[in-house]
This record gives sequence, C-alpha cells and structure tokens, in this order.
Amino acid sequence: MELARRASLAARALARSGPRQRNRALDLMAGALVKETPRILEQNARDTAATADQVRTGRMTAALVQRLKLDQAKVRGLGDGVAQVAALDDPLGRVTLATELDDGLRLERVTCPIGVVGVVFESRPDALVQIAALCVKSGNAVLLKGGSEAERSNRALFDVVHRAVTEAGLPPDAMVLLEGREDVAALLGAERHVDLVVPRGSNALVRYVQDHTRIPVLGHAEGLCHVYVDRAADLDRALAITVDSKVQYPAACNAAETLLVHADVAAAFLPRAVAALSARGVEVRADAEAARATGGAEGLEPASEEDWDAEYCDLVLAVRVVPSLDEAIAHVNAHGSRHTDAIVTEDPSAAERFCAEVDSAGVFVNASTRFADGFRYGFGAELGISTGKLHPRGPVGLEGLVTYKYRLTGTGHVVADYVGPQARPFAHRRVV
Amino acid sequence: MELARRASLAARALARSGPRQRNRALDLMAGALVKETPRILEQNARDTAATADQVRTGRMTAALVQRLKLDQAKVRGLGDGVAQVAALDDPLGRVTLATELDDGLRLERVTCPIGVVGVVFESRPDALVQIAALCVKSGNAVLLKGGSEAERSNRALFDVVHRAVTEAGLPPDAMVLLEGREDVAALLGAERHVDLVVPRGSNALVRYVQDHTRIPVLGHAEGLCHVYVDRAADLDRALAITVDSKVQYPAACNAAETLLVHADVAAAFLPRAVAALSARGVEVRADAEAARATGGAEGLEPASEEDWDAEYCDLVLAVRVVPSLDEAIAHVNAHGSRHTDAIVTEDPSAAERFCAEVDSAGVFVNASTRFADGFRYGFGAELGISTGKLHPRGPVGLEGLVTYKYRLTGTGHVVADYVGPQARPFAHRRVV
Repeated sequence: MELARRASLAARALARSGPRQRNRALDLMAGALVKETPRILEQNARDTAATADQVRTGRMTAALVQRLKLDQAKVRGLGDGVAQVAALDDPLGRVTLATELDDGLRLERVTCPIGVVGVVFESRPDALVQIAALCVKSGNAVLLKGGSEAERSNRALFDVVHRAVTEAGLPPDAMVLLEGREDVAALLGAERHVDLVVPRGSNALVRYVQDHTRIPVLGHAEGLCHVYVDRAADLDRALAITVDSKVQYPAACNAAETLLVHADVAAAFLPRAVAALSARGVEVRADAEAARATGGAEGLEPASEEDWDAEYCDLVLAVRVVPSLDEAIAHVNAHGSRHTDAIVTEDPSAAERFCAEVDSAGVFVNASTRFADGFRYGFGAELGISTGKLHPRGPVGLEGLVTYKYRLTGTGHVVADYVGPQARPFAHRRVV
Repeated sequence: MELARRASLAARALARSGPRQRNRALDLMAGALVKETPRILEQNARDTAATADQVRTGRMTAALVQRLKLDQAKVRGLGDGVAQVAALDDPLGRVTLATELDDGLRLERVTCPIGVVGVVFESRPDALVQIAALCVKSGNAVLLKGGSEAERSNRALFDVVHRAVTEAGLPPDAMVLLEGREDVAALLGAERHVDLVVPRGSNALVRYVQDHTRIPVLGHAEGLCHVYVDRAADLDRALAITVDSKVQYPAACNAAETLLVHADVAAAFLPRAVAALSARGVEVRADAEAARATGGAEGLEPASEEDWDAEYCDLVLAVRVVPSLDEAIAHVNAHGSRHTDAIVTEDPSAAERFCAEVDSAGVFVNASTRFADGFRYGFGAELGISTGKLHPRGPVGLEGLVTYKYRLTGTGHVVADYVGPQARPFAHRRVV
C-alpha cells in the first residue's frame, strides 16, 4: 500500500519533530475546528440526510444516526478536547530507565512513537478528531478509515486537522484519510509499514479486523463487565453502583451485564435491586437462588447458562447468587472479557483479593464500571480500550501510543573486554 | 489443554503471593542447584552421549552439542544467576500512575503478572533455569517445553526448580514441564489459558510458533544488525566496534551482518577494516564503491542485493558505502530487523538523528551491537529479545513479564453524577 509506505517515511520525520511543533499543530487544529464549524455541520447534515433511506429500510438504526449527528456544541467540545490534549505532558523522549553499564557506557530506555497507526472506525465522526489529536501529540503517523455513512463529515473534519498538520510544518503524509472500500483490506495487509491497527466500532468489526491482519490489533471485541456485591457490602452503595453500571448507558462496553450477589446478602439486597432495576425498564434474568431471594418478584425471567456469556448492550441484566468470594472471582474469570469488573464491599481483604485475582484491565472497588473510560481516567482522549495483557491495557491515551528504544552510548566500548578470564565486570549503576 | 487450564488457576494463587514467598523459592532453587549438581551432570552426560549418532549422521552440529553440554562451572553460574534474580527489586504491585479522579475516588495503575507464559526452547538446558527464575520472581505460571536432545538434562533441572517452588508453598501447577512432541501444538492452541508464548531457538522455530498460534508471541525471527561508520567517526573506535560486532560471537542474533560506511571516510577506513576482518577469517562482501575504496584488497567478494537482507550468523560481513547519514538510516530501516543498530560518530547531532530515526529496539552510539543482551543490560537474566514494538521491546527481563491493572477505589461513586447539565467536574489530581 503506497499510502502506508509514504506514511512510514513521514513517521521518521515525525519522530524527530519537537513537542513545540506538534503542539502548534494541535493549537491550529483547535482554532480551525471553531472557524470551520459551519462547513463541518453542512457536510454532516448531508450525511445524516442521506441516511434517511437506510433508516426507513431498517439498514440503520435511529441510535446510529444519533451518533453520526454533529451540532455546534459537539464541535466546540471537539476543539476543547484537542486543546486539552495539547496541554498534556509530552509523552516522547521520557527516560524510563538509565543505567551506567561501565565508565562511559550508558544505557537509557527512552520513549518514542510506535510509528504508523491504522484506525478503522464506524459512524462517530468525532472519533476522527480525537484520534488525530492523540497521534499528532504522540508523534505517530495515522491512516484513518471511517464509515461510508459519515463520508462527507469525515472529509470535512479531516481537511481541517490535516491542514493544521501541514501548516505546523509536519509532513503531509503523516495523516491520511482512506475513503475507498478496498482500502480496509489494503491497510490490514500492509504489515511492512503499519505498526498497529485500532478497530473502533461493533464487535463484528473488531473480530473482522482481528481475523484479517498480522499487524498487532488494539481493541476489544467484547465488554462483559460484572458487579459483585460482597457479603460485606454497604447495600445502599451496592444499589447505586448496580443501577449506574447497568442503566447509565447500556450500549457502552463498560456497562455491567451480570450481577453477582453473595448468598448472605441476597435476601436483603435482591428485592430492592430488582425493584429499582425494573422501575428503570431493565429485564432481570435470575438464576434459581436469585429468584428465590426476591420472593418471586414480578417480571423476573429465568437465567440460562448462555446468559453468563451474553453481552446484552441493552437493558437486560443477568443475576446470580454465589456462595463465596472465591466463586465470584471464578465466575468473573470464566465468563468475563477482561475489561472491567467491580466489587462492592467494606471488607478491605475481600477487595484486595478481588483486585489481585480478577484478571481484568480494570478492577474497581465501590465504584461503577462506567468509570472505565479514557476521559474519566484523565487521559484527555481515548484511542480505544484494550483487553490484551501486553502493553497497552485498559483505556488507551498517549502512553499507549508510545513504546521505547534502548539507547546505548559508549566511547568505543566492545564486548570482547567483558568476556573471558580477564573479563572486566559490569558496573550496572542504576541512574533513573 | 488440561495442564494449561490448571496453570491458569495456579496463576491466580501466584498473583496473590508475596515477594518474600517468591524469593524464598528462588533461594531454595539456588541452593538445590549446587546440591544436585552431580545428578544434573550425570543426566546431561547421558543426553550428550545420545547425540553422538546424530553428529555422525550430520543431523546435529558440534556447536549444538557444545551448547547442550553442562559442567560444574555452568551449573554454579546458573545458581548464581538465580540468586541474582532473587536480589532484584520486586516487579509486582508497583504503582506507575495514581490519580484522584474526585474526592474519595482514586485510580491507580498497578503492575501485576501477565498470567501464564509458555516457553518453547531448543538445546540449551540452562535456559530452563533462567526462565523459571524470572517467572517465579514475576509471579507468572510457566509451561516449559525443551528439545528432545536435552530431555534428561531438562527433567533433572526441572525437578530441582519445581521442588523449590512447592517447598516455598507456591502452587505445584504453576510450573510445568512438557515432554511430549504433541505438547507443542496443544500449547500453541491453548489461547484460553496461555497469555504469552516465547520461542527460544532457531529462526525456523520462531517462525513456526508465530504461524501456528493466536497467542501473542514474544521474540524475534531475525537479528540483522548494522554498524554505520559516519563521516565524523573516530576511525580507531570504528575499527574496534566493527570487529567486535562481527567476530566476538558471530552466531548470536546481536552480531553485525552489514557494515555501512560514509563515502567521505571510506578510503581511510575500509582498507584497515578489511585487513583486520580478513585477518580474523571474515569473508567481506563489498559493493562496487567499497571495493574501489579498498583498492582491490585480497579476498574481497562482490556483494549482491540479497546480501543486504542476509543474516549470515557466520564470519561473513556485507559492506556498503553510503553517500549520507540519510541514506544510512534509510538502508537500516529498509533492510534491518528492528533489533540493534550502531552508529560510530563524534558528531552529537548525527548520533541524535540516527537514534531518533532508526526504528530498532536498540540504537547504539559508539558501542558494539553485541552489548544488546539482558545480562549486559543489568536485567539479571533474559526471557528473550523482542523486536515487536508494543511492550516489551529489546532484551526482556522482569519488566517485560509484568503488565498492569487499573484499580479504581471509590465510596459508592456512580457515573450519573458526572454527566448531564448538573455534571460534577472531575478533579484529576495526579498523585504519582
């Protein structure tokens, strides 16, 4: 893919750019978003108008159209977000390890950009701006492929951010908008030039990308999050956290899908929880013990084995009573998606065990799973959420977009002096 | 794979073990290696005796037999290495980010084990001990599969390290020796339970593993390292570094395969370099300009395009004259393997550009490529060397064996309070 090859050359120039130049591009971007708002909204209106047919024929949901739609406030928010990213500390050139191996021979581990990032995203055109800003800040070249339903919006937003990049003197090839259908396959096959692929969209999109590339993929196909109400839970907190985790935005990947309740508090907690959830339109699917504990509350559905593995993305919640903390942890590790899981408890040792043994990117104590989000974590913007266990993990901001190099500086040092019977010993003086 | 499933359960227990318990296992291991040396050497002698036939029929080289062979000093060295790993700082539970999102709502990023590591290694039985020690220290369960030619040695060493693990009270299933041929395929297919696979051995082994698993693979198929002699090089240093990088241990992945020389110093440097290399038995393959610069030195072979992509692992060196630093960087990025590349120069800005733009795990200034090694870097031992650009990168010691979780602790905090017109703002007070 020629565009990817050129992006990889541009990445070299980006790698030697300074933070002032990259921040200048971001400042220009923030300003231009405000100035160009009318044109952006005009193009966005054409996109949304074009979806009318697809909504009528059922090929697109009203919710998707809602996510596609931009307004004055949203575009202003995008500009503010870019300015926020500009204000963050420079993630590049940070020395995370420094060791004097010997006199005059110094080893440093220094953060540097990953290189070329390919992003495939659906619907939300605001993602384009957030990702572009994160990539400029972190010195990465980026290839952006949006959905066809947002084609005009993406083009308008891309023109704005790309102009800012070139006006700041950064290489034009460092940011590329892909618009052809065939570009996705070309991108996924460009393993010689692309270092990381980020799919942002439906589970189906993520799985498609994972199955069709040898490039490392950052993302998560599923978000099957749990709330576990421990025997030592404060039940008022448990209620607020359960409700928020489920209903605050049920379509999000960090919404809870399964509620686990310790048997000792099931009778005290479940009737209240089911009532509160039902009042908010949540369908509750309960196992036999949970049903018993609620005394046969109205509208309760029986849960089957499949419910423990279901990501509803909707107002549905599976509920199971567990005999112990151990069983809760085992359930989460067996059925969860390593995304985010919460325990509600006043017992610090139960919290400690849950956090140590649950194998997820987010382990929360007495807080809603919905906090798992780059903005809420304070990262300014989010590239995606990673459930992989090699770096990066969880919501990915700038730190997930940099790697490191080992820099070794000597004055002619050779290994031959450090081996054999007359070997000179290493000093290994840690500096940082 | 049942052993992998049990290892993943053992990993939960390991994840909550303390550093004192893990270090106790390492101390027991170091002691037992000394005490059991006679038995280990006896089993190793049986392995080497059994290879005689294979050497006769050419199925095994004398060099491989040499790597298989243990002696008193090597086993003592292994024990010392384990004691060194025990003495390193605990890599787990380190808080690498802490932010108060709001009053009473604290986010921490905490290092934790990766989980279950599968290692496939060839020939060198000492690798078993090093890897076992690193995994115990970092709280990871490990499945070890060695080569059949070292079967008895591996079993003897495994018995020693495994007994230390159980005597320290760590779960027996946390360390498993796989001995069947069919176990490799089972391991590579156990993506539900294994988090990372590390192939240690030939390029063919690494490629086989990469092509037959969906589990993340840590390693490198090739080590195509360069030495670039800049126009501003100190030529004495350049000579010492070139010779060491090529001849100190030519079979290693961090040995140099290509020498790039700036045109301005080619006539001054190359005749000396070729003479020194030839005197050490190195076959030099030169491009036309390099041949001209040496004035037709004896024994010079012409280089073809294929030589720029060849990893000789032998006493052969390709030599090319480049017109500029830019061309040198472009050559390294086009033909290198992202392992380790060195520049020899007294010009800081040339060094800076080389380090920023060469896309390799190690970028060395005025030092031999042969320093790229976990022990020489001060990591105590080495799991492998990674040329991937997501974490980890370069020689991998303990830090490459840990990831992190985000721990969020609140007092009943819910997201609903932070959205909408009455939204409470986040504080985002960075603590660490």
